[in-house]
Amino acid sequence: MRNIKLVIEYDGTAYNGWQSQKNGMGIEDVIKKAVYVLTDEDVKLIGSGRTDAGVHACGQVANFFTVSSIPGDKFAFALNSKLPYDIVIRESCEVSADFHARYSAVRKTYRYVLYNSVMPSALLYNRTCHVSGFLDLEKMKDAAGYLVGTHDFDAFRAKGSFTSSTIRTIYDINIGTEGMLINIDVTGNGFLYNMVRIIAGTLVYVGTGKIDPVMIKDIIQKRNRVLAGKTLIPGGLYLMKVDY
Amino acid sequence: MRNIKLVIEYDGTAYNGWQSQKNGMGIEDVIKKAVYVLTDEDVKLIGSGRTDAGVHACGQVANFFTVSSIPGDKFAFALNSKLPYDIVIRESCEVSADFHARYSAVRKTYRYVLYNSVMPSALLYNRTCHVSGFLDLEKMKDAAGYLVGTHDFDAFRAKGSFTSSTIRTIYDINIGTEGMLINIDVTGNGFLYNMVRIIAGTLVYVGTGKIDPVMIKDIIQKRNRVLAGKTLIPGGLYLMKVDY
Repeated sequence: MRNIKLVIEYDGTAYNGWQSQKNGMGIEDVIKKAVYVLTDEDVKLIGSGRTDAGVHACGQVANFFTVSSIPGDKFAFALNSKLPYDIVIRESCEVSADFHARYSAVRKTYRYVLYNSVMPSALLYNRTCHVSGFLDLEKMKDAAGYLVGTHDFDAFRAKGSFTSSTIRTIYDINIGTEGMLINIDVTGNGFLYNMVRIIAGTLVYVGTGKIDPVMIKDIIQKRNRVLAGKTLIPGGLYLMKVDY
Repeated sequence: MRNIKLVIEYDGTAYNGWQSQKNGMGIEDVIKKAVYVLTDEDVKLIGSGRTDAGVHACGQVANFFTVSSIPGDKFAFALNSKLPYDIVIRESCEVSADFHARYSAVRKTYRYVLYNSVMPSALLYNRTCHVSGFLDLEKMKDAAGYLVGTHDFDAFRAKGSFTSSTIRTIYDINIGTEGMLINIDVTGNGFLYNMVRIIAGTLVYVGTGKIDPVMIKDIIQKRNRVLAGKTLIPGGLYLMKVDY
């Protein structure tokens, strides 16, 4: 059996997230179906992790085992011919048998995109989160500094989500602007459920003055979800990169 | 009667273009309906010009006369609350009675966006035109130079479209890159049917080496549509700005 690694871009708008769904509208289902059409094999597709309904990806990674003789780098082209326009395999290659898209991952980068303008954007509606008021970027950068490091991020995860540990390491948060867009890039060794969307919502509260940057230390320490900001909409979130 | 000017952004993907349609799916229809809901008036909405099905706008301009007392700058907010997410009024203001969105326009800028990468983009599918091969930007810029000026653009319009004159002036064509995107900005005093999409298609042929830059002179002179490039897809085209 050969192990094939895929790097995947998708527009999550029309899907119920990465994970397989009974209605077949998980992104995983659609890619598995394309593999089936191509190879006649009902493979197990291992993703680097789930993304929620409406969340996008520029660099989701998955792998699967196949007996097919299609060259590793040709899978991308072959699968794209079977996939809908909103899911694209950007690269494919053959990897060693021990590569596991989830367990081998060492670092992930997510981007949350804010559209900061009085009016919303028609063209970026399902692509960004609209924030109409003034945002103090310097304060947001200060607040981000307190999030970087190894912390118990219990305050930054959806209530009721199950996990064995709420300790994660954030290596870097970079906040940059591009016209009316504010890109919040968060790199870490793993993320809790809704963690990046809650971090983005907390940074927006900092930017509008609702939360003082230094309060972030307190929010982390108190492990209280209520003290953090809102969970922003899924459409502003992009899984950018998974490092191995 | 007060004359209200609107600056409009839209994602054209779901619509049959700007012009009013029997099925109500012209962008004009949707905005007229929002004005009706707001003011109870069945206004005549004058657009700066039509855009085709699937074509987008960042700065389409329209005007209408109303007896409503809503302040000019508040129409944008009021209409946005009645419009679907893919049509946004970015600005509104009251203008003098002689302002006519179409006849008063002196200059328009369109942008055509190419996505130049081996693989297509899932996230920019209805937003750009995918070109997978190498494009020689310098040659494209040379070719663009021959298009600037006052010419008979008969070779650069859809066959069968009616117009009293095929002479237009292009003031400027600017070709810039942004990552994998190539933006072709064309400013002129007016455009024939499909003209920008044919110019973009011709420049792509120049970029791939199918047409020599200097041949543009010939194509213009011969007024033969067949010599120019393909009409690229509507989703890559944006009406950026109308100057008055």
